[in-house]
Amino acid sequence: MDRLSLNTATTKALTLAEALRAAQDAGLRHVGLWRDRVEEVGLEAAVALVRASGLQVSTLCRGGFLTAADPAGRAHALEDNRTAIRQAAALGTTELVLVVGGLPPGDTDLAAARTRVADRLADLVPFAREHGVRLALEPLHPMYVADRAVLSTLGQALDLAAPYPSAAVGVCVDTFHVFWDPQLAEQVARAGREQRIAAYQVCDFNLPIAADALLSRGMMGDGVVDFAAVSRLVAAAGYDGPVEVEIFNAEIWAAPAVQVLATMQERFAALVLPALERPGSAAA
Amino acid sequence: MDRLSLNTATTKALTLAEALRAAQDAGLRHVGLWRDRVEEVGLEAAVALVRASGLQVSTLCRGGFLTAADPAGRAHALEDNRTAIRQAAALGTTELVLVVGGLPPGDTDLAAARTRVADRLADLVPFAREHGVRLALEPLHPMYVADRAVLSTLGQALDLAAPYPSAAVGVCVDTFHVFWDPQLAEQVARAGREQRIAAYQVCDFNLPIAADALLSRGMMGDGVVDFAAVSRLVAAAGYDGPVEVEIFNAEIWAAPAVQVLATMQERFAALVLPALERPGSAAA
Repeated sequence: MDRLSLNTATTKALTLAEALRAAQDAGLRHVGLWRDRVEEVGLEAAVALVRASGLQVSTLCRGGFLTAADPAGRAHALEDNRTAIRQAAALGTTELVLVVGGLPPGDTDLAAARTRVADRLADLVPFAREHGVRLALEPLHPMYVADRAVLSTLGQALDLAAPYPSAAVGVCVDTFHVFWDPQLAEQVARAGREQRIAAYQVCDFNLPIAADALLSRGMMGDGVVDFAAVSRLVAAAGYDGPVEVEIFNAEIWAAPAVQVLATMQERFAALVLPALERPGSAAA
Repeated sequence: MDRLSLNTATTKALTLAEALRAAQDAGLRHVGLWRDRVEEVGLEAAVALVRASGLQVSTLCRGGFLTAADPAGRAHALEDNRTAIRQAAALGTTELVLVVGGLPPGDTDLAAARTRVADRLADLVPFAREHGVRLALEPLHPMYVADRAVLSTLGQALDLAAPYPSAAVGVCVDTFHVFWDPQLAEQVARAGREQRIAAYQVCDFNLPIAADALLSRGMMGDGVVDFAAVSRLVAAAGYDGPVEVEIFNAEIWAAPAVQVLATMQERFAALVLPALERPGSAAA
């Protein structure tokens, strides 16, 4: 379980202290933190709690939402991301996940929104570098292109990262968002070659799609993702860092955390870990 | 309205005879036919109705579902597609749209399913060519990759088509399915260069995603698709054929057909047609 990281989105009902305790009790070494859990106790207290837990923070989730077209929206986004960068540095993680944002209300111009993301990234990189934090661009499933992230594929994320050193801008590979991509093998390999893999997040793609489409993420094994296939690619690309389990799912949020973590560990051991440890093996 | 084609999926409550009449009454010159409406009257009667209407059939929808791994499933798929090819030829259209199918139940191996699609395409091409019918591969939005179509992008469709002459295998460009694609401009241009654009279908992508995700298609202007942007690409790629409006949407199905067709014509004229007629123009 050295590789497994509990992302606090999976245990949404828990406070930061409770989530850290649950991860410790389960014998984990890493946690991925959402900013809501950090901010509700305040950054200083959060840093103290993390330090006392002995857990390593694999990522901070999330900055981004960079697509505003108006000056006030742009300024707000930059300020919020600078805050997130400071938080990441204070919490001891080098990886800040960015969900880049969707289309402004009433706007359908994807190309322009994508250009604005590139522009805001350029604005943020120097500040992030000063703080030793890498901006981890997360492509989201194309079903969220309009309302959540105009960044839809790993190839597109790597193109966006290309002007910057790999220590400044990386990518977050999330099975839910990328498993469908016909270019997945070549783009994960490219991400490895370019040393951009900042985070690997796993969860399943449940069908039917949930009424709230954001909540269609499922426990590994409950949906249609081939975890062995994706994990072999990620391992073959040289990624040997923590693997976060990040699930937004109403049923999982309603279940007792102890049970959720037990299932998570069991499924991780059965479906993900073997492919990470033996990337060269053929069909698992 | 010479370019506009009513796809019978948009008027699901109408019989074939009623849909043809509605299209005639609206002054259209083309219809796209679904096989359910054809088969409920029988092929011979359908051919007679179409001939009497004077309308041209822009496409027949749909063949495909080629991903079965078992011999019986394969044989069934081939037989069904041969039937669809014969129907298309009899109805006077050269374009048979193929939705390639998702993963078999319990199976998560996308790569293997994609290989089977390529294999079945190879099986079907000679039969289609004998009948003068082109197989129009339709990439579907990645939200349907597991349950409807393992073919998710235009680039992937063009790769699949590449071994065959352009008169044998083409692609269907549907705004709902492809608008999000960061490679859209280059792949539509490629489709044009390779003379593969067999059909152009328009409808909007509505948010939030409908409870039944298949029904999230909307009337142009009701969702997040930039019709001018996509239509300019399609026109610049040299496509000058009919443009089908194909909408699966519970509210539209419940509305009076006359009203649906009137709105469809109005929105087509406002949002789609200008970009088709002046592909060189910048922002419409």
